[in-house]
Amino acid sequence: MNKRILLAKRPEGLPGEDTWTYEEVEIPEVQDGEFLVQHHYISLDPAMRGWLRDQRSYIAPVAVGDVMRAASVGKIVESKHSLFPEGSYVAGWGGVQQYCVTDGAGWYTVDPALAPLETYIGTLGMPGMTAYFGLLEVGKAKVGDTVLVSGAAGAVGSVVGQIAKIHGCRTVGIAGGPEKCKYLVDELGFDGAIDYKNENIREGIKTHCPKGVDVYFDNVGGEILNTALTRINRGARVVICGAISQYNSTEPVKGPSNYMSLLVNSASMIGFVVMNYRHRYKEAALTMGQWLAEGKLKSREDVYNGIDNFHNTFLRLFSGAKLGKLVLNVLEAEDLS
Amino acid sequence: MNKRILLAKRPEGLPGEDTWTYEEVEIPEVQDGEFLVQHHYISLDPAMRGWLRDQRSYIAPVAVGDVMRAASVGKIVESKHSLFPEGSYVAGWGGVQQYCVTDGAGWYTVDPALAPLETYIGTLGMPGMTAYFGLLEVGKAKVGDTVLVSGAAGAVGSVVGQIAKIHGCRTVGIAGGPEKCKYLVDELGFDGAIDYKNENIREGIKTHCPKGVDVYFDNVGGEILNTALTRINRGARVVICGAISQYNSTEPVKGPSNYMSLLVNSASMIGFVVMNYRHRYKEAALTMGQWLAEGKLKSREDVYNGIDNFHNTFLRLFSGAKLGKLVLNVLEAEDLS
Repeated sequence: MNKRILLAKRPEGLPGEDTWTYEEVEIPEVQDGEFLVQHHYISLDPAMRGWLRDQRSYIAPVAVGDVMRAASVGKIVESKHSLFPEGSYVAGWGGVQQYCVTDGAGWYTVDPALAPLETYIGTLGMPGMTAYFGLLEVGKAKVGDTVLVSGAAGAVGSVVGQIAKIHGCRTVGIAGGPEKCKYLVDELGFDGAIDYKNENIREGIKTHCPKGVDVYFDNVGGEILNTALTRINRGARVVICGAISQYNSTEPVKGPSNYMSLLVNSASMIGFVVMNYRHRYKEAALTMGQWLAEGKLKSREDVYNGIDNFHNTFLRLFSGAKLGKLVLNVLEAEDLS
Repeated sequence: MNKRILLAKRPEGLPGEDTWTYEEVEIPEVQDGEFLVQHHYISLDPAMRGWLRDQRSYIAPVAVGDVMRAASVGKIVESKHSLFPEGSYVAGWGGVQQYCVTDGAGWYTVDPALAPLETYIGTLGMPGMTAYFGLLEVGKAKVGDTVLVSGAAGAVGSVVGQIAKIHGCRTVGIAGGPEKCKYLVDELGFDGAIDYKNENIREGIKTHCPKGVDVYFDNVGGEILNTALTRINRGARVVICGAISQYNSTEPVKGPSNYMSLLVNSASMIGFVVMNYRHRYKEAALTMGQWLAEGKLKSREDVYNGIDNFHNTFLRLFSGAKLGKLVLNVLEAEDLS
């Protein structure tokens, strides 16, 4: 049997439990050219909140009644597909469910001997790709730049900061709470961290970015984005990756009222979605895989167990009650080995 | 004697008459290496409002007690400078006064036989340069693009639209009132015009930009910028040139709450100041001079007379009661020839 979670209705504000339908259905039969994946880990990402909204975007919204969209990684337990043999491990868009039958479109094999399976939906998956291309291609970070990143202890932000360090940038993170800030500096090697819950953000940026900000990588929007705009340098790049502070707001989104700083500083604010770089995912995965192997890049996943805990775990994205990449282990207890 | 206008105090909101001190002083003696310019025309530009504000910007604010900064064009009536002979015409930063003694830094000679003198502070001056580099270098407009410009009947906007047409773009302007809109389409060859005072802007953009907007050139900010963001295409460039709707606001600037459209569309919002391109002004002047000569580019100046009318004329920038480039003729009646 396959436990799965469907979108029951579109939420207003913070999604409630009634956003989802939990159901258990029989696993469909595998046809020729298909294979069956038993999911080990489901990726929980802020972008999922956007997919619940019925509006024009870079990707179609999840339809009410459909399995909730999510990246996933697992093992092929049955295969009638020549390129995907039984027993191999794969990552793809399997959705929030325990099993998935697919023809392989968008799936790729991964090697659990090279990196823990959950890394393939984190640092070596979409969040890692987002960090890599967002910082280097969109933000064009270069040696000597000061890079400021918000949501810095998260799946994307933590990788942004580490890649910035590898590239010779001064790197400062904004995160919520002393534990996360300590983690950034002590574990990940950030040059500085600003605790937005307990510090004045503007003063923090002044202190830790004494030469101003060349690249601001924004995952949060709202007042943090607005404040960062007051400290950018001439020619700065403000990378718009997300706006998690606004995703559940029932009021109109807060626009950055300091946007005229872009004019004064001949700076840019640049939006992107990682799919733009899909033809280069392999390059990024090889590079980051090497960094992981060398210990230059650390990947941290915050793993919760049980598909029945999906909703509560999902909410941790917005409360911030997590450290690193949020993933859900959806194996049943008897399958855990 | 030289009539001149000094900054008396920094205004809050719309500048009042008490922002300025009018005075009449003796013309200083011309020293070796200097020359005396009799101003014919003073340029009135929205950017002047920004220079009154005591804040970090791309240029120092005008100090209280100083002559108000302005671009100007006039005739050299006395010279002790080998490169600037008496009788020649020059443009530079002469300020809001009738005469100016200078060592020539930042001044250049202009030819009134090639274009009317006032054109050199308009289409062939800073506003024209702003349009040229803002559209082509910052906005990277190319054949087939849809270019939308706000403040379209103004000094910068009217040139942006015409250059866009010359470059094979679909060109749509936003302006206030039917007279300006008619001027854009009938006189300047815009493909469409939206009257923001009498039309729904969003519907207007939908109608006139059926394929969406590739370059939005923003001179106004506020709700027009915010609405334009909802209609941009993938990879669009939003050029931030000004925000005249916000300059006199005593409330916090309105940020563009739809800025996440940049993410969804992998688009950019790019600020610039024309000074970035000062090494290429000559190139742009030659190109636009040729277009003017061929009749491909039309330059329109709205000329008011008398330095005593400076304040009331300046306010036309913000009320919109003008068409084309706003200039002030500061010659005394007896000097008008």
